[in-house]
Amino acid sequence: MKDILIKSLYRETKQYIGKEVKISGWVKTVRASKAFGFIEVNDGSFFKNVQIVFDEALENFSELGKLPISASIEVIGEVVETPGTKQPFEIKASKVTKVGNSSSDYPLQKKRHTFEYLRSIAHLRPRSNAFSAVFRVRSIAAYAVHKFFQEQGFVYVHTPIITASDCEGAGEMFRVTTLDMENLPKDEKGKIDYSQDFFGKSANLTVSGQLEGEIYALAFRNIYTFGPTFRAENSNTGRHASEFWMIEPEIAFADLADDMDLAEEMVKYIIKYVMENAPEEIEFFNSFIDKGLKDRLNNVLNSDFARISYTEAVELLKKADVEFKYPVEWGCNLQTEHERYITEKIYNKPVFVTDYPKDIKAFYMRINDDNKTVAAADLLVPGVGEIIGGSQREERLDVLEARIAELGLEKEDYWWYLELRKYGETKHAGFGLGFERMIMYLTGMSNIRDVIPFPRTPGSAEF
Amino acid sequence: MKDILIKSLYRETKQYIGKEVKISGWVKTVRASKAFGFIEVNDGSFFKNVQIVFDEALENFSELGKLPISASIEVIGEVVETPGTKQPFEIKASKVTKVGNSSSDYPLQKKRHTFEYLRSIAHLRPRSNAFSAVFRVRSIAAYAVHKFFQEQGFVYVHTPIITASDCEGAGEMFRVTTLDMENLPKDEKGKIDYSQDFFGKSANLTVSGQLEGEIYALAFRNIYTFGPTFRAENSNTGRHASEFWMIEPEIAFADLADDMDLAEEMVKYIIKYVMENAPEEIEFFNSFIDKGLKDRLNNVLNSDFARISYTEAVELLKKADVEFKYPVEWGCNLQTEHERYITEKIYNKPVFVTDYPKDIKAFYMRINDDNKTVAAADLLVPGVGEIIGGSQREERLDVLEARIAELGLEKEDYWWYLELRKYGETKHAGFGLGFERMIMYLTGMSNIRDVIPFPRTPGSAEF
Repeated sequence: MKDILIKSLYRETKQYIGKEVKISGWVKTVRASKAFGFIEVNDGSFFKNVQIVFDEALENFSELGKLPISASIEVIGEVVETPGTKQPFEIKASKVTKVGNSSSDYPLQKKRHTFEYLRSIAHLRPRSNAFSAVFRVRSIAAYAVHKFFQEQGFVYVHTPIITASDCEGAGEMFRVTTLDMENLPKDEKGKIDYSQDFFGKSANLTVSGQLEGEIYALAFRNIYTFGPTFRAENSNTGRHASEFWMIEPEIAFADLADDMDLAEEMVKYIIKYVMENAPEEIEFFNSFIDKGLKDRLNNVLNSDFARISYTEAVELLKKADVEFKYPVEWGCNLQTEHERYITEKIYNKPVFVTDYPKDIKAFYMRINDDNKTVAAADLLVPGVGEIIGGSQREERLDVLEARIAELGLEKEDYWWYLELRKYGETKHAGFGLGFERMIMYLTGMSNIRDVIPFPRTPGSAEF
Repeated sequence: MKDILIKSLYRETKQYIGKEVKISGWVKTVRASKAFGFIEVNDGSFFKNVQIVFDEALENFSELGKLPISASIEVIGEVVETPGTKQPFEIKASKVTKVGNSSSDYPLQKKRHTFEYLRSIAHLRPRSNAFSAVFRVRSIAAYAVHKFFQEQGFVYVHTPIITASDCEGAGEMFRVTTLDMENLPKDEKGKIDYSQDFFGKSANLTVSGQLEGEIYALAFRNIYTFGPTFRAENSNTGRHASEFWMIEPEIAFADLADDMDLAEEMVKYIIKYVMENAPEEIEFFNSFIDKGLKDRLNNVLNSDFARISYTEAVELLKKADVEFKYPVEWGCNLQTEHERYITEKIYNKPVFVTDYPKDIKAFYMRINDDNKTVAAADLLVPGVGEIIGGSQREERLDVLEARIAELGLEKEDYWWYLELRKYGETKHAGFGLGFERMIMYLTGMSNIRDVIPFPRTPGSAEF
């Protein structure tokens, strides 16, 4: 007899009522009296448990009452409707078999644990309600990303993780090496000789797949990346991790307006897909993690995202009737307090802020005709602030070369990036979405460590 | 007027015949006579080009005849049926605008280039026919993987890339560090003090997500990973890369037979999905790269995969009427020549070889009752040999502890892996598929460097 998944029992209850089924799963709770008992069992396929009713007719009745939490069992029984109770059905067991043991010191007993404690048992926390919900949502959201892009014919590109490219910029990067650390080879000048390292030169972990993504957009028109990226920043906040996943679409024959259209569509698609495919989980987050969650998500779905220029935004912030910690002047970076004021107080919906001063943005962004701003767009959302950063890319070879020179960068380091302009100058644009930030937005979880299965942060790379 | 993608023109030709459309794309070839000319244009959305017909009525007629290859153009014109010619339709241009230039020394002129040369211009090679086909297939196959698992409710898990875990085994790993290499901190004994490194201890790039995948299978029942993995092996072959993507499903309440069922289903699903969604590309590979490709793929689709034990396989190989380079004895590893003999000569279809001697397999594989073999299964396919390696995992705490001791491993390094057995001992199994090996199988490409956008191999990490 084949197992039925608990998800199927919930999603297609009607077809199972009155039928005998077999399920396997882990014991969540057991209550037993003299003549009968209840087991809550979960098989991991669904957020909710199934209730098993068993009685003294079963030959192992007394053993069942003592089942340890998280033991594995197999249940055969009839699916019975239970109108008027919390769960729509239960299983009246004709046979319950313990197929795997557990231990009475199982750390996830019924009482509530702090998220901090649960992080220390990352091998068990996905079995808890909250983390089971988080990581199922993470999976469903990842699929939504792929579905959104693939259904429009975007090509998924695996950009490299290890890079010896000099043009990723001077972000804080992790070195990748196979040199014998206790016995490093030196060159004539007494410096470490990276020509003897694995890749024949110094290598790092990538901070972004964008530049390589552009290569593929200029071949396939519409592409996206979705892979891990790294920051060796020594900052211990709830919003930074050293290893996180990024989504970076890049579109050719497209300008900044097209880029914003795509970002808006994508954000709405992901939210809608997750709300439709993980309703129980979203309900849980809304009840126990973040009471305003559903309203906020629905508000995003039903809004036309606003679009204002950085210059306009600065004007509005200056006029604002609040005292900011960081004063606002044209030319400064917007802080989270500014971003949240714009999206929450001024608009109460997502807002694209466009055309930032070129001095606070990256070299590859397209210079506007005013020669002071670039065709960049950041998406700010209520509750968080910036969630997406994008731009039209500088496709004019001469302008890009001038910009590289102006910033004191080495033209030779950018040879292939420049050749993309020389051989087929094409208008193109793209953006980056930090996947974890999206998951935090979808779940209301406030620490990035709680939306990554095995978070990597300064001092911590366990499991 | 919005661009129509060339893919739409090909897939829904009928609805465009007689209509005016706008397309954007890159010039592939130009031919012009005195009164009219042809431009082959491709916009990256589809494998095939569209032919543009233009004539002297256009005011920039003479300029169009001199368009450089890979220049960007915008075309407005009528879609016209062309029965009896190679392409089903062409566009009779009313307007052609050059929107971006290229250069006459564009490296991808019409003549054929070697794959080796094209590797040296990885920023341009996806624009060539062969690589445009390879990397579109790679994208479609990646989506097939997600679709296959997600439609069955599997949870996608991002296992960590950076790991300080000691239980990944002693494979050749890349070190990840932020220590100042020119000035390494030392401890009292004069050894490098990794407690001062970013993660507070020595860290590496992962070689597999399996052990962490097991954590999630024991919470969600059915999970899969799909992410990059690394090997610091100094081997320069056409089948090894230092960075490659792996798919590692893990299923609970499942044994080796279930595991093989899943692997067979998955392989067939991916092949079918790619053949249906990239028919032009598969046709191209079958014509120009590997003449037997389609037959071989269809043969896999239509076969029930065979299953024989390692012991039986060794017997058959001993009886084989060929001289192997490596002689076969019970207890030895099967070499590619043996694997190919089994799958090509004996069965002519995919074969699972099961129950290998425990001494040549990993510590986590479930010991069979004979105490000599383990519940492992490798999938061998014609044309390649091994493509998948899987096993049922040892779920019995005492047996696993004994095995770890027997192999001289440190029990403490495996604390959480052992706790998975202590807290909810559950039968489970899984396998690993090297994604690049699958892409090679789907395309007939024979060098792994040619199925990875930016391959990393010893001495090479360009772009």
